[in-house]
Amino acid sequence: MNDEIRIAVLGVGKMGSFHVESLTRRTRGARVTVVSDVSDEQAHRVGDPIGARVVADPAEAIAADDVDAVVIATPGSAHEAQVLACLEAGKPVLCEKPLTTEAATAAAVYRRETELGRRLIQVGFMRRFDREYAALQQMIAGGDLGAPLMLHCAHRNPAVPEFFDSEFMIRDSVVHEADSARFLLGEEIAAVSVVRGRPTAEAPAGVSDPMLVLFEAESGALVTIEIFVRTGIAYEVRTEIVAERGSALIGLDQNVVTKRAGGTWGGTITPDFVARFGQAYDDQMQRWVDAARAGIASGGDAVDGPGSWDGYAAAAICEAGVAAVVKGERIETGMEDRS
Amino acid sequence: MNDEIRIAVLGVGKMGSFHVESLTRRTRGARVTVVSDVSDEQAHRVGDPIGARVVADPAEAIAADDVDAVVIATPGSAHEAQVLACLEAGKPVLCEKPLTTEAATAAAVYRRETELGRRLIQVGFMRRFDREYAALQQMIAGGDLGAPLMLHCAHRNPAVPEFFDSEFMIRDSVVHEADSARFLLGEEIAAVSVVRGRPTAEAPAGVSDPMLVLFEAESGALVTIEIFVRTGIAYEVRTEIVAERGSALIGLDQNVVTKRAGGTWGGTITPDFVARFGQAYDDQMQRWVDAARAGIASGGDAVDGPGSWDGYAAAAICEAGVAAVVKGERIETGMEDRS
Amino acid sequence: MNDEIRIAVLGVGKMGSFHVESLTRRTRGARVTVVSDVSDEQAHRVGDPIGARVVADPAEAIAADDVDAVVIATPGSAHEAQVLACLEAGKPVLCEKPLTTEAATAAAVYRRETELGRRLIQVGFMRRFDREYAALQQMIAGGDLGAPLMLHCAHRNPAVPEFFDSEFMIRDSVVHEADSARFLLGEEIAAVSVVRGRPTAEAPAGVSDPMLVLFEAESGALVTIEIFVRTGIAYEVRTEIVAERGSALIGLDQNVVTKRAGGTWGGTITPDFVARFGQAYDDQMQRWVDAARAGIASGGDAVDGPGSWDGYAAAAICEAGVAAVVKGERIETGMEDRS
Amino acid sequence: MNDEIRIAVLGVGKMGSFHVESLTRRTRGARVTVVSDVSDEQAHRVGDPIGARVVADPAEAIAADDVDAVVIATPGSAHEAQVLACLEAGKPVLCEKPLTTEAATAAAVYRRETELGRRLIQVGFMRRFDREYAALQQMIAGGDLGAPLMLHCAHRNPAVPEFFDSEFMIRDSVVHEADSARFLLGEEIAAVSVVRGRPTAEAPAGVSDPMLVLFEAESGALVTIEIFVRTGIAYEVRTEIVAERGSALIGLDQNVVTKRAGGTWGGTITPDFVARFGQAYDDQMQRWVDAARAGIASGGDAVDGPGSWDGYAAAAICEAGVAAVVKGERIETGMEDRS
Repeated sequence: MNDEIRIAVLGVGKMGSFHVESLTRRTRGARVTVVSDVSDEQAHRVGDPIGARVVADPAEAIAADDVDAVVIATPGSAHEAQVLACLEAGKPVLCEKPLTTEAATAAAVYRRETELGRRLIQVGFMRRFDREYAALQQMIAGGDLGAPLMLHCAHRNPAVPEFFDSEFMIRDSVVHEADSARFLLGEEIAAVSVVRGRPTAEAPAGVSDPMLVLFEAESGALVTIEIFVRTGIAYEVRTEIVAERGSALIGLDQNVVTKRAGGTWGGTITPDFVARFGQAYDDQMQRWVDAARAGIASGGDAVDGPGSWDGYAAAAICEAGVAAVVKGERIETGMEDRS
Repeated sequence: MNDEIRIAVLGVGKMGSFHVESLTRRTRGARVTVVSDVSDEQAHRVGDPIGARVVADPAEAIAADDVDAVVIATPGSAHEAQVLACLEAGKPVLCEKPLTTEAATAAAVYRRETELGRRLIQVGFMRRFDREYAALQQMIAGGDLGAPLMLHCAHRNPAVPEFFDSEFMIRDSVVHEADSARFLLGEEIAAVSVVRGRPTAEAPAGVSDPMLVLFEAESGALVTIEIFVRTGIAYEVRTEIVAERGSALIGLDQNVVTKRAGGTWGGTITPDFVARFGQAYDDQMQRWVDAARAGIASGGDAVDGPGSWDGYAAAAICEAGVAAVVKGERIETGMEDRS
Repeated sequence: MNDEIRIAVLGVGKMGSFHVESLTRRTRGARVTVVSDVSDEQAHRVGDPIGARVVADPAEAIAADDVDAVVIATPGSAHEAQVLACLEAGKPVLCEKPLTTEAATAAAVYRRETELGRRLIQVGFMRRFDREYAALQQMIAGGDLGAPLMLHCAHRNPAVPEFFDSEFMIRDSVVHEADSARFLLGEEIAAVSVVRGRPTAEAPAGVSDPMLVLFEAESGALVTIEIFVRTGIAYEVRTEIVAERGSALIGLDQNVVTKRAGGTWGGTITPDFVARFGQAYDDQMQRWVDAARAGIASGGDAVDGPGSWDGYAAAAICEAGVAAVVKGERIETGMEDRS
Repeated sequence: MNDEIRIAVLGVGKMGSFHVESLTRRTRGARVTVVSDVSDEQAHRVGDPIGARVVADPAEAIAADDVDAVVIATPGSAHEAQVLACLEAGKPVLCEKPLTTEAATAAAVYRRETELGRRLIQVGFMRRFDREYAALQQMIAGGDLGAPLMLHCAHRNPAVPEFFDSEFMIRDSVVHEADSARFLLGEEIAAVSVVRGRPTAEAPAGVSDPMLVLFEAESGALVTIEIFVRTGIAYEVRTEIVAERGSALIGLDQNVVTKRAGGTWGGTITPDFVARFGQAYDDQMQRWVDAARAGIASGGDAVDGPGSWDGYAAAAICEAGVAAVVKGERIETGMEDRS
């Protein structure tokens, strides 16, 4: 297929406008024809320079004739309805995480997609497209290291908005580890515990930042996660796998330039997720566009990455995580059978 | 401009077919409409799957109506005529290094472009688009480190074809350092010396591999280059700037995954130039395509990167380098004034 | 004081004979005059070449006229009686960890030393003398990083004897983290939890190797410890402090020589505790000998490092840790007040 | 031998008092009984606290009955007479570099020692005792990397006294590379060239700082040395060997503590030679003391490290280096045959 597919981007705030820019300047084979946002002004600010129509109603945007596929970057609460509308319209969709905000609705989305018989939903767990995560996953899956026993994760942001409370840290930040732990271990998470420690002085009253989150995988492998979103330092995402015959580590600061001056040596810390994962977002987009074009052409599946089951699994883990934060005890995820 | 520009790729061997793939799969805003190669079979192998016409005669390809801009990846001896043809046709051209094979012809190309009044020639010194080189250049140009005093370069290939002799190592490999030294130091190279040392047992008789090349910049700053193309190990390109108030280093092996197993720790060495500089090649292509589209639209300059002067300077340095190899003495580059 | 002090070394197995060698070849100001061991043969093997007397009864060795100070490297169960004998004899003693095998007896030793009014007991937590731990402790205590919030520790041995079960892993390995966490955080540990995960195939039946141990400090700071003693890889001891204004990491593999060959880059992993902490053991010994000489000369304290209180604290933490392993729940350490 | 050997230290300035401290506090088996210095005040300042006699005349100190062996840390111009006096007295001597200030006198010292039939002279090239250099030398000598082809050295000081001119940089700084290149390559240096580049603004008028020094080994292997003694940054000594089957690097900044704070990551740079090579100095001293004790006991050789031949070779290289600086041309070392 030589022609570009036509994309509607729903929600063009920080994340959605990043996707618009990726589609417009760095991705081949797609063109943004429609943008939609609760703010008409923001929709025009993003859509006008690239000649995209502004459509206020997301459902209308999904249904539009000049839309072949959809990118969803609206708030999580809007995802369920929008993803289901894409399914019914038979249009490929790349949905930012979370797939939906509850495990039950995410499971329902997964079942509906299964009923319709065609994989159209990809969830934006873009770490799977990061070259470090991808290389680590291949190393584990290749079997050289033997069975995974522990996975140690650190997830640190320099700063977040005031509303990031302990529950939100699980839903919005730890959700990435929920997916990447499943991706790396190749199995489901059975239970979640959270230990609240001493909060940083930067944390609002009542917010436990940092926290220690513990996942237990079905095999018994343990996942430790330090989630700390007000470090004041940098964006740091580090993961170490400890397996029966070796260990492997990703996410140490990268040596773009190592400088020696003023009595110290070192480099600049990654300031934000774009610097760390920009390449992963762009690769995710190009590969999704390629898969969507192929799916549209063939009438078959249109996914190259995590799908609706992965979205459900992450939702189930985060739901258990939030319960673990609130109740202070170990919570089983109680995931459905996939069959 | 919404439409894609139409590109002819001249020479679709290893490098040219890499460019075709980059243009077809990873670059936005361009389409390969014509390919040309001395091997008709190779031209069809590359051109047919993407629907590009095969045109045997490069001049005809350059002149074709369905060609807006040209990428040249033919052998260096063919460059002069092809680049001049692009100039006369008023079409933007991205020419793989070398611009031409002698300093005199490269200077003539530069003067012809200047006469015509429009910058249409970009030379494929893609290291300038590598994020490490770019960051190092900015650090130096920003002045934090003070005046550059020495630049230490290592350029190592795991293996090369039999015909890579001492002169070819200058022309084909050191040419990259010729450009990157100028890029990093921000000044011209005044003289070149070469010291032949003990050759590796892998070197054919009479070939000095490795060699030590020394550039003297106009300011007196020194550039040392270890060129070693039969290391049997990996593709390694390392550069350290030593300046009045600090030093900075790029090109140490990158920690994609640090593995601990079997009694050692470490990572995989970069196997080839694609693994090391693939991103730089793709970024070069996207930025050139954007500049070419803008230049075509405006009728003005169509370059975003090293131009014909840079091609001339590299040719002058390599010409001095080859003479230094042959005569075993220090050779001045005797570069023309730019005015 | 120009003369050397005369040392009895009790227990001259692996650890004790290392101390004899350190005292004889690498420490100034001391001489081993007496060795004692349950194996007469081993005692002669170690003592004869250096002209030390063999005394079968440890109590007799402690009391001997040609013994000014004592190094204890016998099994932990013998420590209580031997340390108390040193106290009563008024002789400085460097006692390998543990101080005693129960918190109650360790507390009694501390109280007896306090009654006698002179600090004579140093406990062999040699990590405090490692330059990395010492530098990290100074960085934290200096306040630059702000209040500590989390401490992540990994403690990995390549292999251990068969009898290393889950409880022994706490008592013999995690005891080092018990001390170093207190040393780095500058506060006491209030509670301990242990999570048993998937055991490595190398672990004997019923042994949880690796385990995740969690300390809660009085301030609420959390300490996570991966204890894994059958990695088959190397001796790895890593610690990262995460504090309010920064983080700091020690124990990454050290770049003695970074080698590039055979398709990989990297270095050799630390094979055992001598390679990792040999310098710390020797520095501990020299500083203890200097302190013991000074204490003998002055009749005052004879300690330069962790004392009997630190021995008690580690015993209390490990006792809680063993209970946490057995019962599978969070156990408070219930430490006494120091006063 | 149980007794300590008695040492005279000649010259107790910065280096000599460091040796006194090492002998007194960190070395076993030796005692400083005599100190000598041109400054009577300085001699008493160093000697009195340790109960050493002050002897103004170095010859008298060497000959004294209470002196078994000698450490020479006087200015280089005094070394020849003092080392020869030690030889005639049959006393082991550890002589700071240079052995003597000219190649001819150094050769004469070597020949005199050879005539007397007993190796009594050790030269203080302490890098051979540094664990990084030692490991690199073993890796090369072990043959895994194949034949050495190039050796790249950087030798950088943060600052030096005003009198450090270009010749002094060769004699006092590059002398270390003269020895370590021979140690690592296992062969002699045949010729030396020096290229003066752009001097740092910190250099006094007429002083070429930094300089590029080039050694050619007998095998044809090349050694490049950046000598830069006014970097304002840190003490950096780095060496990379490039061989037929691999390369290896020592001297990158060591990760004692890797800190992340204030927007950067990294560590502290080594401030001076004590921080970098303190362990090597102490190990050199302990091993020399052990060898001296053994030699005194046996009446045989008393050296464990570089000897008078190594002192001569370094002198010959530096003499050629100074000529190369002055004349601006390649100078052969013209070394004698060792036989």
